[in-house]
Amino acid sequence: MSFSRIDSRAFDEIRKTKITPNISPYAEGSALIEVGGTKVICMASVEDRVPPWMRNDGKGWVTAEYGMLPRATHTRVRRETQRPSGRTMEIQRLIGRSLRAIVDLTMMGERQIFVDCDVIQADGGTRCASITGAYVALALACRRMLNDGTFIRSPIISEVAAISVGIVEGTAVADLKYEEDSTAEVDMNVVCTGSGKFIEIQGTAEQEPFNRSQMDEMLALADKGLKELFEIQRNVLAG
Amino acid sequence: MSFSRIDSRAFDEIRKTKITPNISPYAEGSALIEVGGTKVICMASVEDRVPPWMRNDGKGWVTAEYGMLPRATHTRVRRETQRPSGRTMEIQRLIGRSLRAIVDLTMMGERQIFVDCDVIQADGGTRCASITGAYVALALACRRMLNDGTFIRSPIISEVAAISVGIVEGTAVADLKYEEDSTAEVDMNVVCTGSGKFIEIQGTAEQEPFNRSQMDEMLALADKGLKELFEIQRNVLAG
Amino acid sequence: MSFSRIDSRAFDEIRKTKITPNISPYAEGSALIEVGGTKVICMASVEDRVPPWMRNDGKGWVTAEYGMLPRATHTRVRRETQRPSGRTMEIQRLIGRSLRAIVDLTMMGERQIFVDCDVIQADGGTRCASITGAYVALALACRRMLNDGTFIRSPIISEVAAISVGIVEGTAVADLKYEEDSTAEVDMNVVCTGSGKFIEIQGTAEQEPFNRSQMDEMLALADKGLKELFEIQRNVLAG
Amino acid sequence: MSFSRIDSRAFDEIRKTKITPNISPYAEGSALIEVGGTKVICMASVEDRVPPWMRNDGKGWVTAEYGMLPRATHTRVRRETQRPSGRTMEIQRLIGRSLRAIVDLTMMGERQIFVDCDVIQADGGTRCASITGAYVALALACRRMLNDGTFIRSPIISEVAAISVGIVEGTAVADLKYEEDSTAEVDMNVVCTGSGKFIEIQGTAEQEPFNRSQMDEMLALADKGLKELFEIQRNVLAG
Amino acid sequence: MSFSRIDSRAFDEIRKTKITPNISPYAEGSALIEVGGTKVICMASVEDRVPPWMRNDGKGWVTAEYGMLPRATHTRVRRETQRPSGRTMEIQRLIGRSLRAIVDLTMMGERQIFVDCDVIQADGGTRCASITGAYVALALACRRMLNDGTFIRSPIISEVAAISVGIVEGTAVADLKYEEDSTAEVDMNVVCTGSGKFIEIQGTAEQEPFNRSQMDEMLALADKGLKELFEIQRNVLAG
Amino acid sequence: MSFSRIDSRAFDEIRKTKITPNISPYAEGSALIEVGGTKVICMASVEDRVPPWMRNDGKGWVTAEYGMLPRATHTRVRRETQRPSGRTMEIQRLIGRSLRAIVDLTMMGERQIFVDCDVIQADGGTRCASITGAYVALALACRRMLNDGTFIRSPIISEVAAISVGIVEGTAVADLKYEEDSTAEVDMNVVCTGSGKFIEIQGTAEQEPFNRSQMDEMLALADKGLKELFEIQRNVLAG
Repeated sequence: MSFSRIDSRAFDEIRKTKITPNISPYAEGSALIEVGGTKVICMASVEDRVPPWMRNDGKGWVTAEYGMLPRATHTRVRRETQRPSGRTMEIQRLIGRSLRAIVDLTMMGERQIFVDCDVIQADGGTRCASITGAYVALALACRRMLNDGTFIRSPIISEVAAISVGIVEGTAVADLKYEEDSTAEVDMNVVCTGSGKFIEIQGTAEQEPFNRSQMDEMLALADKGLKELFEIQRNVLAG
Repeated sequence: MSFSRIDSRAFDEIRKTKITPNISPYAEGSALIEVGGTKVICMASVEDRVPPWMRNDGKGWVTAEYGMLPRATHTRVRRETQRPSGRTMEIQRLIGRSLRAIVDLTMMGERQIFVDCDVIQADGGTRCASITGAYVALALACRRMLNDGTFIRSPIISEVAAISVGIVEGTAVADLKYEEDSTAEVDMNVVCTGSGKFIEIQGTAEQEPFNRSQMDEMLALADKGLKELFEIQRNVLAG
Repeated sequence: MSFSRIDSRAFDEIRKTKITPNISPYAEGSALIEVGGTKVICMASVEDRVPPWMRNDGKGWVTAEYGMLPRATHTRVRRETQRPSGRTMEIQRLIGRSLRAIVDLTMMGERQIFVDCDVIQADGGTRCASITGAYVALALACRRMLNDGTFIRSPIISEVAAISVGIVEGTAVADLKYEEDSTAEVDMNVVCTGSGKFIEIQGTAEQEPFNRSQMDEMLALADKGLKELFEIQRNVLAG
Repeated sequence: MSFSRIDSRAFDEIRKTKITPNISPYAEGSALIEVGGTKVICMASVEDRVPPWMRNDGKGWVTAEYGMLPRATHTRVRRETQRPSGRTMEIQRLIGRSLRAIVDLTMMGERQIFVDCDVIQADGGTRCASITGAYVALALACRRMLNDGTFIRSPIISEVAAISVGIVEGTAVADLKYEEDSTAEVDMNVVCTGSGKFIEIQGTAEQEPFNRSQMDEMLALADKGLKELFEIQRNVLAG
Repeated sequence: MSFSRIDSRAFDEIRKTKITPNISPYAEGSALIEVGGTKVICMASVEDRVPPWMRNDGKGWVTAEYGMLPRATHTRVRRETQRPSGRTMEIQRLIGRSLRAIVDLTMMGERQIFVDCDVIQADGGTRCASITGAYVALALACRRMLNDGTFIRSPIISEVAAISVGIVEGTAVADLKYEEDSTAEVDMNVVCTGSGKFIEIQGTAEQEPFNRSQMDEMLALADKGLKELFEIQRNVLAG
Repeated sequence: MSFSRIDSRAFDEIRKTKITPNISPYAEGSALIEVGGTKVICMASVEDRVPPWMRNDGKGWVTAEYGMLPRATHTRVRRETQRPSGRTMEIQRLIGRSLRAIVDLTMMGERQIFVDCDVIQADGGTRCASITGAYVALALACRRMLNDGTFIRSPIISEVAAISVGIVEGTAVADLKYEEDSTAEVDMNVVCTGSGKFIEIQGTAEQEPFNRSQMDEMLALADKGLKELFEIQRNVLAG
């Protein structure tokens, strides 16, 4: 067939993905996730209080922040010291929702877990890599809280991982790298639980509206790729 | 069957929707859209220059801004005078992408069209109503530009409308009003072209992850509801 | 006489003014005021707490915010999302002072009433229309608080309305519309109580300093116009 | 008569006022104005370019900024390093308008004069003192520009000074000091030209609406006080 | 020798320095310091509460803020109303640290002293003049607190003053004025206690790295100059 | 002797320091520096234009930015998305000055080099590690510019490195780690050229003023430690 990807992968092949746990001596949970050339440091911090609007509810909260080193990308991007950009806010809200979807907040007491996802190097798919890595950092933090008796039962009720799929030159492909992402006709991020249910689907026609059968193809690729990512997460957490 | 909606609609029934065109004596294109209790003023402004990063490309640009009167909602919400909230930025980026997906920017010359969507009253589905109403304001502005000779050919290459669907108490329903929206297990916004292709899909599990068959049900409801919205748009623009 | 106004009004004739009460299903009090082509939505929101610096004083507070849709005017004006402009702050401080001047704050308990005045369409005199409309929204909110037993006695001790007067091409005129306002030699806003006492006078020589007899002429026009505005307010509130 | 002022002045007596010219070795024009305990440093800076929105109009611009040392007042006030307060913006807009009213901008070439008014000590009437002092700084700067040949004709077409008047315990008084100002029923600032024409009148009922005869009394006091202030200005500039 | 300073001073001669105490009727302590053409108003304000992060520690806090009138300098500098510049923050942090180094915070109770240093005229060495003047304002405020019984023992445990030294055209000189400062090869600020111990040393090679013997020369000049400054402070406080 | 350091080092012993060059596939020059538990990513980005205030001078510019991941430290620190803190600004100004001191800006053409120093893990001495690592990133970027012909001669005229020294429990020690730094009586940062000349000295008495002989001891420790750091830099750049 004539279609070939810039890095010679098959259309349904995800990039080499590696998660290194416990990279920080300070954070309650931490991981470095590498998805091809994309590298994200994920650190989970547990704090003994919740945001003001949640006080005295007896529940906890999980939130995420997302950042990128100025030269994580091909050309330097200005540091966001005045206000987070719309893109940054959109991404960190997505990560936060994805994590809260698999946590039982009533099991946390009045505690907040911040998961910081900082992109050290960006080669496409940073928001998906952040979610997949953030889960490991969060799980490690909860495990520590369980071990030291802070939590009686783990508040984590499911696994979560994310993958980007898209249509590139008319073909559905999995796990787009930067050059594919920037020319894709359609870009879709799929966030699922370990049992394959959807937490979030965001599909955008960047160049060309897409039809139902293209969507079905992309969802099938996402399903296949996510199974591999959950396998990697499980190995890391079991290790 | 035991399921009944708060306003007695059938699960696949959209709210009474009305679009009033040309409500502003100043804007190049304008419309008031009412979807049940949700009311949004949409105004399209044509400016003879593009943002700095686009200069000398010979192309135009379409962008959107979204706002809400402080008391458009049940309780007053603080005016966003320091910075737009993450939610506002997310919505206006969505509206902008949806409009650009149906415009041929190369047909506009170096002009920018701002479409301002201001929610006067909010009863759920404000971002979808904004997109559906913004299309009418944009189409009217382009028609005026065509009439006065600014445009030689209309840059609009398709129609666009949006609808929210979701899972409420286990049942897939169309066009959620506020009370449904705030308790829904799943909330999905679907933006399509007039020929039924997807421009954007954003599905979020607010309470409960959803499976593939639930997604298929929601997409079917979206398809049915959008057909009705396109009918209303066409009548208004033909009128 | 050779003087003629752009819209053929007599020099002492105010524009057609209409106030529609109760336009919001949510706000405790609301009104749409139309003064010629100027349209302002006024919504009064009652909150059960006062600003931090007033706590434990046993008194209430009334404040106002003013906004304008970006395309309320002939050309689009940038949305004030970074900070309110000097003009906006000046106007909302004026509206707030005008309302507080006719309210007995000690009758409110520790409650705050926010009156939001949002200009949907601007054709001159938006600050005066805001004050005149805000009074109706405030009065309706207080009436509701009285009806539901929150207030024992209405805190409203007088009526308030406002009008702009000015010198255009050497002649004193009442209720300037946009084209007059932007070329006027003098612009004066007069805020009075229902019994004709002054709450605020702001006269500015935009092009030409003015003398005492011109000021007297303007004040006479203001007095005449305000009597008509109070009549309209009374009819609406009696209706 | 039973009425007596806190500092034993007659009701129509202004405070001891002194203007010291040329206090800065750098500014093109400068003055320190002392009105009783109120002290304001006024410095006029001439710049060889106008704001972006005025370029290529061939005209100049005059603008003012107003500031206050944090401990100029009885208790320390927070430094305005985040944004100017509404009060500050209102005052500096008033000073700017007052100065522009007496300048022929077409005589300046494309130059901007900034007049900075910084309150070193505040005892009421700071905005009026700023205007009266700013005029001297501005006049000195224009004289220097005339002397060095930058200006061919002075752009100053009139004098300007300002005074506060008010109603205190039912009596109209001139030039309120802090304790009077903070308890006054009515506070009015009057800005006039040297020939007695009004540039700006701002009267506010702080405690009690006022009637026409009270306004006439206040205007008479303003007229008398302003004559004295113009005398002081003339002596300084003649000196 | 061929070296000569712009104002004919000897290399080790400081400028004429004068400190005027008690210049404000409101501040608990205040002073105007003049070091040649540099003039700084220093005002110490005592507040009965500490910053939130110090509450319930039983200790006090001393902090400083630094500002400059826009035309304190040769050309006008924009007012810092959006945020303090890096330079401003650096200077006020230095002043604050220098003052806290000579105060026993445990002797203050839960009180905060703000020392505002506002430069009225700048001719080099403003940060050093601020520290030297701030000490006098602080000492006067503490004396007043002692006199009125608020403090039982003065929290001041040492004196503090500061001087700038540098290398200009290869020669070490004391107390640089503006023209020297802006062309110096090396600029060093030395903050000492009354007994000659170092509180802070900040030496910067502006044009040329410096060696150890140059540093020794500069420190000797600082030592000599500081002795004179302490003498002036003592006379003022004894006066 | 009774003195012992928390990590058993000798008083004059620096921590294990490692510099890994070329860690980014995108940045023109990059390095990861590890000084004990402190880890900083340094990336140099070359841009083909200078800041607006330098245009048309024919010279280049070197500047630095400093950041820290929120959980680089023992407890999470809020992300600086509103404005950089005073500490951050102070540090990045220091890094920028240190780098400019060893660069001949006239050799760069109108180009700007940004050096971003991002602390991934903080265990004391982050500003010194940033400078030492930034030099390597900058040198690598210049080497690349030289290799590709952009630069004809390297603009780097000297080496630069930095070390912290201090007084801990009365003893002068080199290269303080976090626990030492936070309890030190004196903290001093010394920035030198490869030939041992001073670029910047910043000594601060955190707890106790220091005398001349203590300063001499600290400078001797700095000299010794810097020699080792220059050796490490040279090996990396030669490698």
